[in-house]
Amino acid sequence: MAEINTIAQQFVQFYYTTFDADRSNLASLYRTGSMLTWEGTPIQSAASIIEKLTSLPFSKVQHKVETLDAQPSSPTTPSIIVAVTGLLQVDDSPNPLQFSQTFHLIPDGGSYYVQNDVFRLNYGA
Amino acid sequence: MAEINTIAQQFVQFYYTTFDADRSNLASLYRTGSMLTWEGTPIQSAASIIEKLTSLPFSKVQHKVETLDAQPSSPTTPSIIVAVTGLLQVDDSPNPLQFSQTFHLIPDGGSYYVQNDVFRLNYGA
Repeated sequence: MAEINTIAQQFVQFYYTTFDADRSNLASLYRTGSMLTWEGTPIQSAASIIEKLTSLPFSKVQHKVETLDAQPSSPTTPSIIVAVTGLLQVDDSPNPLQFSQTFHLIPDGGSYYVQNDVFRLNYGA
Repeated sequence: MAEINTIAQQFVQFYYTTFDADRSNLASLYRTGSMLTWEGTPIQSAASIIEKLTSLPFSKVQHKVETLDAQPSSPTTPSIIVAVTGLLQVDDSPNPLQFSQTFHLIPDGGSYYVQNDVFRLNYGA
């Protein structure tokens, strides 16, 4: 579990730092079979996912991770489920938005790629 | 995708209805290798998970699902990642709590069991 938590923390730090700096650079994390569900909209393949992420209507964005949980997703392969909750600050909006994001990371040649990615903003009660 | 969404919806409806009525009845959904991370605490095996869930310090509980997203977690087996956000009303508290929950469902003899389960309350900004 220790190693899985370390991998998950490194991934999450890299993912949001890259997202907030220049989200087109996230392309290397996805593959042709990768899926993103963004606010309920399913999108498949690295190219379509990056097209979606770069077309989001904000320029400045900052993620703040509040909770991060990781589990091995399979007894036979070292794949990892990563569940994140946090706050998203967009452009000059004064109020951050609460978000939830789930990743499924698959090992590939010493690194990991994102097979599954589900993102939701939480509007609450 | 249509079938996966249907399976996910049926699972989620069954899960929360059972949780809210008598959460000890969730035992059949977990296996020895199943993992729950409850508010950051990792718990393994069906027996330990049910012990945790039944020892939670509330008697009345009601889940209201707000968003439900499902994706196939693997190109080779029909396993499913289910990401839920919603509201949790506990005992006589007037304010519901926002929660996020991620399940990883593995097919087994015509049904599915929960391999992974991550639960978090979102306290927001």
